[in-house]
Amino acid sequence: MMVNFKDMTRNVMAREKALYEGHPVAAVAAVSEAVASEALALIDVDYEVLPHVIDVDEAMKPDAPLLHDDMFTIGVDPAPKKSSNIAKRVEFGFGDLDAGFAKADVIVEREFTTKPVHQGYIEPHACVANVSEDGQAELWCTTQGQFIVRAFCSKLLGMEVSQLRVTASEIGGGFGGKTVVYLEPLALALSRKACQPVKMVMSRSEVFKASGPTSGARIWVKVGATKDGRITAGDALLKYQAGAFQGSPVQPGAMCAFAPYDLENVRIVGFDVVVNRPKVAAYRAPGGPIAEFAVESVMDEVAMTIGMDPVEFRLKNAAKEGTRAPYGPKFGPIGLVQTLEAAQAHENYKVPLKANQGRGVASGFWFNIGGETCASMNVGEDGSVALVVGTPDIGGSRASLSMMAAEELGISMEHIRPMVGDTSSLGFNFLTGGSRVTFSSGMAVVEAAREIISQLRERAAKIWEVSVDEVEWSQGHARFTGSGEAKSLSLAELAKTAGKTGGPIIGNAAINATGAGPSLATHLVDVEVDPETGKVTILRYTAIQDAGKAVHPSYVEGQMQGGAVQGIGWALNEEYIYDDNGHLENPGFLDYRIPVCSDVPMIDTVIVEVPNPNHPYGVRGVGETPIVPPMAAIANAVSHATGVRFTDLPMSPPRVLEALETNQSR
Amino acid sequence: MMVNFKDMTRNVMAREKALYEGHPVAAVAAVSEAVASEALALIDVDYEVLPHVIDVDEAMKPDAPLLHDDMFTIGVDPAPKKSSNIAKRVEFGFGDLDAGFAKADVIVEREFTTKPVHQGYIEPHACVANVSEDGQAELWCTTQGQFIVRAFCSKLLGMEVSQLRVTASEIGGGFGGKTVVYLEPLALALSRKACQPVKMVMSRSEVFKASGPTSGARIWVKVGATKDGRITAGDALLKYQAGAFQGSPVQPGAMCAFAPYDLENVRIVGFDVVVNRPKVAAYRAPGGPIAEFAVESVMDEVAMTIGMDPVEFRLKNAAKEGTRAPYGPKFGPIGLVQTLEAAQAHENYKVPLKANQGRGVASGFWFNIGGETCASMNVGEDGSVALVVGTPDIGGSRASLSMMAAEELGISMEHIRPMVGDTSSLGFNFLTGGSRVTFSSGMAVVEAAREIISQLRERAAKIWEVSVDEVEWSQGHARFTGSGEAKSLSLAELAKTAGKTGGPIIGNAAINATGAGPSLATHLVDVEVDPETGKVTILRYTAIQDAGKAVHPSYVEGQMQGGAVQGIGWALNEEYIYDDNGHLENPGFLDYRIPVCSDVPMIDTVIVEVPNPNHPYGVRGVGETPIVPPMAAIANAVSHATGVRFTDLPMSPPRVLEALETNQSR
Repeated sequence: MMVNFKDMTRNVMAREKALYEGHPVAAVAAVSEAVASEALALIDVDYEVLPHVIDVDEAMKPDAPLLHDDMFTIGVDPAPKKSSNIAKRVEFGFGDLDAGFAKADVIVEREFTTKPVHQGYIEPHACVANVSEDGQAELWCTTQGQFIVRAFCSKLLGMEVSQLRVTASEIGGGFGGKTVVYLEPLALALSRKACQPVKMVMSRSEVFKASGPTSGARIWVKVGATKDGRITAGDALLKYQAGAFQGSPVQPGAMCAFAPYDLENVRIVGFDVVVNRPKVAAYRAPGGPIAEFAVESVMDEVAMTIGMDPVEFRLKNAAKEGTRAPYGPKFGPIGLVQTLEAAQAHENYKVPLKANQGRGVASGFWFNIGGETCASMNVGEDGSVALVVGTPDIGGSRASLSMMAAEELGISMEHIRPMVGDTSSLGFNFLTGGSRVTFSSGMAVVEAAREIISQLRERAAKIWEVSVDEVEWSQGHARFTGSGEAKSLSLAELAKTAGKTGGPIIGNAAINATGAGPSLATHLVDVEVDPETGKVTILRYTAIQDAGKAVHPSYVEGQMQGGAVQGIGWALNEEYIYDDNGHLENPGFLDYRIPVCSDVPMIDTVIVEVPNPNHPYGVRGVGETPIVPPMAAIANAVSHATGVRFTDLPMSPPRVLEALETNQSR
Repeated sequence: MMVNFKDMTRNVMAREKALYEGHPVAAVAAVSEAVASEALALIDVDYEVLPHVIDVDEAMKPDAPLLHDDMFTIGVDPAPKKSSNIAKRVEFGFGDLDAGFAKADVIVEREFTTKPVHQGYIEPHACVANVSEDGQAELWCTTQGQFIVRAFCSKLLGMEVSQLRVTASEIGGGFGGKTVVYLEPLALALSRKACQPVKMVMSRSEVFKASGPTSGARIWVKVGATKDGRITAGDALLKYQAGAFQGSPVQPGAMCAFAPYDLENVRIVGFDVVVNRPKVAAYRAPGGPIAEFAVESVMDEVAMTIGMDPVEFRLKNAAKEGTRAPYGPKFGPIGLVQTLEAAQAHENYKVPLKANQGRGVASGFWFNIGGETCASMNVGEDGSVALVVGTPDIGGSRASLSMMAAEELGISMEHIRPMVGDTSSLGFNFLTGGSRVTFSSGMAVVEAAREIISQLRERAAKIWEVSVDEVEWSQGHARFTGSGEAKSLSLAELAKTAGKTGGPIIGNAAINATGAGPSLATHLVDVEVDPETGKVTILRYTAIQDAGKAVHPSYVEGQMQGGAVQGIGWALNEEYIYDDNGHLENPGFLDYRIPVCSDVPMIDTVIVEVPNPNHPYGVRGVGETPIVPPMAAIANAVSHATGVRFTDLPMSPPRVLEALETNQSR
C-alpha cells in the first residue's frame, strides 16, 4: 500500500491552499457543541478565490489551472518537465492492436462519462480520541481498518504505533469509504493539546463535501470483432478524477476493463487526474465499475451489430483458467463461463418482453486481494471459544469466520463468539477491503483452529499417556486410535482440565495471505422505460457470481444484492452536482438520491462455486464484484428498450427523456 | 480455586434469609437514579428479625443461632451429625507437641483478638453491563480478575463463558477485595431483562456493609523455648469469622502462622466460622496478618522472657532452604535470614529510645502463588510492541512486565506499550492476587518475547538466506554469526518488512505458572505512646523484604510501604463497630479511620534479593508479605514502650489508655 502522507495531512487540514469546498481549514475543541459553534464563528477565514477545475478534460488541458505546482506526471517516458494535473499514467496490455483491428469485421468505438457517486453509508464519520499526558492514546472510530487508522494517525502525529490503541466501533456501512482518515488525526491532535477526550462527528453534508466519493470519469473504448463473434482487439482510455490529491482508482479500473475476456490484442491506458473536488476514496471494486460500464456497453453493441446473443458472444470470448489477464498474470481456475451458462439457463433470461422494455447483460471482474491478517482463538474453561479477528465486519464476516472455526474444531458455531479486536489484541491486519476478509481472515482462523487442535491432541495424549500420533481430532473430540480400549475427550472436557495439562488453550495465526481468487459475475436485467417521463423501472434483476465457496450463502447473496442495488443507484440516479463556482448543490440524501426499497425488485441470485485452490475452503472474495456489472447491464437494457445507446451516467429521467427526444428529432 | 456457587448467588442476592445488614434483597434498574430511588421506595420489605450472632466464640457455642441449617463442619472425623456455624476445621503440623513443650525452659501462652478491617480501596465497586438480545454480553467493572468475573457471572447467569466479554476498568484499589462479584451479576441480569445497558455503583456505606472485609478472629498461641533461645514447640488455635457464608482465610492463616520458623514440633488448628456479618473477602495476604500478629507477639514475649534480642532469637530459629514448612513442603531458597541480618545492621535498629518509646520487631511470611496466565505481544510495523496481559495492574505490573519484555527483546521499554486485555483477547488468566502477577505474567511475557525472538531470527535468516542457527539475537538485533561479512537487522527493520517475510510478528504464551517463591519480611518499628491520651505515634518504620529480584525497585518499595501503612491502620485504628442489633456503626471513612499521610513517617525499606530459581529473573511475589508483620511489630513496640502486653487490635487511643490505667491500678 503506497501512501502519500504529504497529501494525507493536507487533505485532513488544508495548508497552502484549500482545494475544494469542504476542505477543512481549522479545528476547534470545546466543552460543548454550543461553545464549539461559537468559537468557530469567531474564526474569520478570508479566502482568495483561485481559478478552479472540476472535470478531467479541462484539468488535462495544457493551460488548466494547476492544483499542485509540484506535480509531474509519473509513468510517462521521458518524464515531463512541466507540472500538470495529471498525476499518473498507467498502461496494461499486449499484442498488436493495429493487426487486431485489421482482422475485425466490426469495430465499435464510443466515449462514456460517469459522475462521482458516494458510497452512501448511513453512519457518518465519527470518532472519539483520548490522549493522556504520557502520550498514550486511545481512539474509537468507525472504520474498515483499525490498524490502518493506527498506521496513518501515528505517522501524521509523530507517534509510535503502539502508543495508539484503535478500536473499530460497530460500523454503519463503509463500502470502501472508511479506509482513510479524516477526523481521526484532528481529534487526536486536539485531545493531545487538551488532555481531554475529543469527540468529532461529521454531518451528512460534511460527509458529501469532505469525504471521498469515487471518481467521475471519461472513458473511451474501441473493440473489434469478427462476424462470427471473436474479439480481435480491445483498446480503452480511462481518465479518472482523483479529487484534490492524486490517487484515483484508475489502475484497478484499468486492470478490470477487459479482464473478463480472452484477448490477443489489448491495451488499456489510464490517467489519474487531480481536480477541485474532494479526494476520492475507495468505493466497492474501486475503478472497476467505471471501466466495465464502458467496455461492457461496447461489447453489447458489438454483439448487437453482428446479431449475436450477448451471453453467447461473451461465452465465445470468456476468460478462463490459463487465460492471460490484460494486466499480466495467467488466471487460475475462474468461474466466468459458469456464470454465463447459468445466465443462459435462468428463467429470467427467457421472460418475454413488452413494449418499452429491454433486457441487458453484462459481466464483471474483480481480482480480490489477500494481505496481512491475524486471528486469535481462546478456548474458555467451558470449551466455548472467543474468536478475535482484526478486520471489521462489514458484510457478515463474523458469521463466516465462526463457521470455518466451528468446522475445523468440530463444534457448533453457537459455542464460538466472534469479535473484532482492537489494535492491541492482534498483530497487524490490513483493512477490510478488496473482498479479502472471508478469504484472508478465514485462512488465519483455520490456521489458529488447527493450532488449537494440535494442542488438544497433545493434551489428550498427555492425559491418556499415549503418543500424540495415536490421537486424532474428529467431530469435536480427541480420539485414541491406538490398539486397546476406545477413548475420547470432547473439547469441553479438555478445556475444563487445561490448567492441569499445561495452561489455557489458545491458537494464534499471523499470516500474509496470498492466492486470492478473482470473482467473476454476470448480471441480467430487464427494464421498462417510461417514454413520457424518462423514468427507468427495474423489472427483474439477476446477479450470478462465482463465490469459490459460499461459506454463508445468504450473506453472499446479501453482498450480491447490495452490490446490484448500489449499481442501480449509480446507473439511474446518483451524481454529484456542482454549480459553476465549484459548490456542491446536492449534499444530502434528499437531493442525492440513493435507491430505496420501493425502487428495486427482489434481486435474484445464483451462486456458482468454482473453488479457489489457494484457500482451505475454496473461498473467493465476493463483496465487490457485484457492483461491477450493473451500470453496463442497465445501460444495455435501456438501450434495447429505447433504441438509443446510453453512454452517460446517471440515466436519470431528465437525461433519458432528453436522449429520447433528441433521438426522435433526428 | 474451590467456588461455592450456591453461596455466591445467595450473597449476591438473599434468598431464604437476609444474613447481615447490607445483604441485598432486591435490585431495580431505571432510566435515571431518581426513578430508581422512587422505585426502591415502593418496595416494602417486611423483615422477621431472627436471633443473630456476630462473634466467633458465640457462634461456635452449641446453642448458637444457626445461619445455615444445612452446614456440617468439614475436616472433622467422625463427620458431625448436627449442623453448626463451624464450616471447616483445618490442621497443619508435625512432631510431638507434648515432648516439645516438656523440653522447654520457658512457655508463653496467650490469647489474641482482631477485628474485621476493610481493604479501604478508594474506588467503590462499580460496573456497566450490556446484554444484547442475542444473549451476547459485555461487562465493564472494577476488578482484580476479569476472567474470574467472567467465570462467576456466566455460571450464575447460565451463560457460556465466551458469551460474556469482561473488561477490567483501570482499578482504584483492590487489595484482594475486588476478587469477588457483588453488583456484576445483578447488573447483567437487569440488563438481560431490559435489553439496555445497566450501570451500578456502590456508595461508601454499601462498600462497608455489603462487600467483604477480612475476618475478625480469636487466636490462641503457645510457644515453648529453651533458655538459650531454641524453640521446642509451637501450638496455635485460629478461629476466623467467615461472615455470612463459609470461606474465611483461616487456611492460609494457618499456613503462615509458624512458617518463618524451623520447628520440630508444631501444630496449627483453624476454624472457619460463619457469623451475621458481610461475607469476608481476601485482604492482602488473607489470614496471614491475623495469625502472625499472635505468633509474632508471643515470639517477642518468649525472647523477652529469656532475655534475648528478638532479631537474634528469630535468627536462631529462622526457616531457611530445606526447612520443612509447618504446612508440609520443604522450602527452597528463601530470604528470611537475610532480612533479619539486614534488620540487625540497619541504623534504625540502633537509634536510642526515650521515655514512652518502644521498638518492635516482627517477621512475616506469605507463600505466593502462580496459576494460569497468558500474555500476547504484537510487534507493530515500526517495531514498537503492544504487550497485552490478562491481569489487572494494581501495583505497577505494567511497568515490571514491560521491563522484562524489553530486557528479553533488547529494546528500550519506551517502545513497549503494556495493556490489560479484556477476556476476549487472551486465554484464561487467574486473577491479580496471591502476589502472582510479576511472577506469573512475567513468565508468560518472557515466553512470548522468546517466541518473538525466535521468529525474528527466522526472518533475518530468510532475508540473508542463511541457516537460522547462524543468527543470534542480541541487544535488539538479529546478528549473523556465520563466517563472512557481519550483518545485523534491528527489531524495527525486521518489523518493517514483516509482511514480506511471512506476516505480522506476534508472540503468545499460555501457561500454568508453578514454582512461586515465598517472600519473607522483617519489620522494625519505633513508637511513642502518649500516656495521657493513649495515642500511639509511629516514629520510625523499616520494612525489609526478600523480593527474589526487584524488577522495578521503586514499585517494590511502594508495595512494602503500602503494606506497612495498611498494617499500621489495622494495628492502631481500623475496626468494624457493631451495635447490639448487628448494625454497623461506622460505615464511612470519617468513623472508620484509615491512616492518612500525617499519621505515618516515611517508611524506610530494604530490599533483599534471594532469587527464586523457578523464575527466569528470580522474581518472587512481593505485594502481600508487607502487611503480615506490622501488627505484631507495632504491638511489640507498644508493649515495650508501656510495659503492658497488648493482645487486642486495634490499639486505638481509648483501648491503650484503658490498658494503661488497668495496669497502673493493679
